[in-house]
Amino acid sequence: MKPLDLARQAAQGDRRALAQLLSWVEDDCPEGRAALSALVEPAQPACVIGITGSPGCGKSTLVDALIAHLRQQDLSVAVLAVDPSSPFSGGAILGDRIRMSRHFLDPGVFIRSLASRGSLGGLAPGVPAALRLFGAVGFPWVLIETVGVGQSEIDVAEIADLCALVLSPATGDGIQAFKAGILEVADVVVINKADLDGALELEREVKATLALSSEPPPVLRTVALSGEGVDQLYAVLSQLWTTLRDTGGLQQRRRRRTRYEVAAALRQLASQALAGAEAVFEAVEDGRLSAQAAAERLLAQRHQQG
Amino acid sequence: MKPLDLARQAAQGDRRALAQLLSWVEDDCPEGRAALSALVEPAQPACVIGITGSPGCGKSTLVDALIAHLRQQDLSVAVLAVDPSSPFSGGAILGDRIRMSRHFLDPGVFIRSLASRGSLGGLAPGVPAALRLFGAVGFPWVLIETVGVGQSEIDVAEIADLCALVLSPATGDGIQAFKAGILEVADVVVINKADLDGALELEREVKATLALSSEPPPVLRTVALSGEGVDQLYAVLSQLWTTLRDTGGLQQRRRRRTRYEVAAALRQLASQALAGAEAVFEAVEDGRLSAQAAAERLLAQRHQQG
Repeated sequence: MKPLDLARQAAQGDRRALAQLLSWVEDDCPEGRAALSALVEPAQPACVIGITGSPGCGKSTLVDALIAHLRQQDLSVAVLAVDPSSPFSGGAILGDRIRMSRHFLDPGVFIRSLASRGSLGGLAPGVPAALRLFGAVGFPWVLIETVGVGQSEIDVAEIADLCALVLSPATGDGIQAFKAGILEVADVVVINKADLDGALELEREVKATLALSSEPPPVLRTVALSGEGVDQLYAVLSQLWTTLRDTGGLQQRRRRRTRYEVAAALRQLASQALAGAEAVFEAVEDGRLSAQAAAERLLAQRHQQG
Repeated sequence: MKPLDLARQAAQGDRRALAQLLSWVEDDCPEGRAALSALVEPAQPACVIGITGSPGCGKSTLVDALIAHLRQQDLSVAVLAVDPSSPFSGGAILGDRIRMSRHFLDPGVFIRSLASRGSLGGLAPGVPAALRLFGAVGFPWVLIETVGVGQSEIDVAEIADLCALVLSPATGDGIQAFKAGILEVADVVVINKADLDGALELEREVKATLALSSEPPPVLRTVALSGEGVDQLYAVLSQLWTTLRDTGGLQQRRRRRTRYEVAAALRQLASQALAGAEAVFEAVEDGRLSAQAAAERLLAQRHQQG
C-alpha cells in the first residue's frame, strides 16, 4: 500500500496501518518520510509525557494506571516503552504482563517497545520520529517510558514535552536521583508506593533539595497499584501542558526535541565517516594531519561519495 | 620564531619552546601542525601511562612518587594533568603544592595542566595531540592524570598506552569502581594507602571481581606518601609496556588513540553544523525532512561553505 494511503488510514485510527508506518519511520525509509510529510499535525498537538525512574519504582504500574485513567475519559493514548525492564517491552514478570494485557486489547491504546539505546548510546534514533508520528495521527496523549539509569532519562527530558520522575521509598533511590542530575530536568516528581515506610521521608528529602531551585516542580504522592493519586497526576500534567502550550513554551520544547534528533543523526553520520578511515589515521599518526583536519577530510570524502 | 626551529629546540630539551609548541598544538594552529609533522618520532616511542582514580585515593601523591622514581633513574617525564582536583592543576591544598614544587624546578620534568573536559564532554581535544608532541620531542615517559568520575577515565584508557587505576580503602570506592566499568579497562590496579585499615579487604574484593575476566590485570599495593611499592609499580608498568611494544600491541593502542582523537574532532564538527540550523529544524518539524536527511544537508552545507 502507498505511504499516503497508509497515512490516511492511520490517521483514521487503523492500528495496523500505524504499525507499518512506525516501522518505516524507525528505519528512516523514504516511505516513512513521505507519510510523515503527508500527515497534517492536528490543531491540538499531542501531550508527550516522558516517565522515568529506577527499576522497581513502580513506573510501569504507574503508566498502566495512567492509561486506565485516560481511557476512562475516552482519550486515546500511544505508549513508547524504551525501558528493557518494562512489562510493555516484554521484560517483566508474568503477573505484570497479565495485568497490562487489558490495554493490548483496547483499540484506544497503542503500545510499542523500541530498543532502548542507539549504537552511540542515548535513545534509539527512531524514538523522536515515532513521537512525531503519534502526534500526527492524532493521539492526544503519548507516554514514553524509559529506565532511569545513565543517559536515557536525560535524553527523554530532551524529547518529551514534560518529564515525570518516579521515585519510590522501596528502591531507596532518593540520593541517587539527585546525583544523576535528573531532578533538575523533572517537571513533576512522583513519590510512588506512597503507602510504604519511608515515603514521607523521601518526599521531605526531595522537597528540601528542590527548594534550592528557582522553580521547583510539584511533588505528588501516588500508589499506582491501587490508582491512588493518579487522577491528581493527570490533572497536574494537563495543567502544566496547557500552560506550556499557551505561553509558547511548547514550541521551545519541540524545537529542543528536533535539535536532539538532528544532533543524534549527525553523530551517527560522524561515526559512519570513521569506517574505513585507516589511511587518514596513518596521516594523523605521522603528523601530516591534525585530528581536526582529518575530521574535515573524512566529512568531505563522505560528501563526495554521497 | 618559526615552527621548525621551535620543534628542533624543543627536541633538544628547550622547555620554553615546548610550552609554545604545546599551546599551538592545543589550539590546532597551522604552526602546531607544521611543528608536529617536522618532528621525527624517536626510535624509542614514549611510554604513555594514564593514571586514574577517585578524588582522595592519593593519585597525585602517587604521580609525584612515580616522577621521583623516574628521575632517580635519570629518565625525563612529561605530566599532563586533566584532573581539576590534582595539585598539578593547581586545585589542591597548599601542603600538596609545596611537596610538588620540587618537580617544577627540575628541567627533566615537564608539567602541564589542561582543561578537564571538551565542550562535548570527554577529554579536551588537545589532550591526544599533546601526548603525541611529548613523544615526538623525546620524553621516554609521559603520565596523564585524570579524575576517576564519569567518562574521563574511560577516555584516558582510549588514549594512553597503559592505564593504571588507583583505588584506596580511604575513599571506600571499591564497589563504585566496578560499577563504572573502569575495572575492565585498567591494565594495572593499584591499591594505594595500603597501610590503612580495609586495604586487604579491598584487594580481596578487587581480585575476586577480576578473577572473572580472561586476563586479569596485576594488582599492586602502594603507600605513595612514603614511596612504598612505587618501584614495583614502575617495574610492572615497564614490563607491560615492553611486552606491548614487542608484540605489536602498542601499534594497536596508538591506532585506538588516533581513532578516539579523530572521532572527537568529528563530534566537534557535527556540533558546529548545528549552529544556525533553524531553517532545517523547521523542515524536520513540518515532516519535510527526516532527522537523518537534515543531518546530511547540514554537513553538505558546511562543506560548501568551507
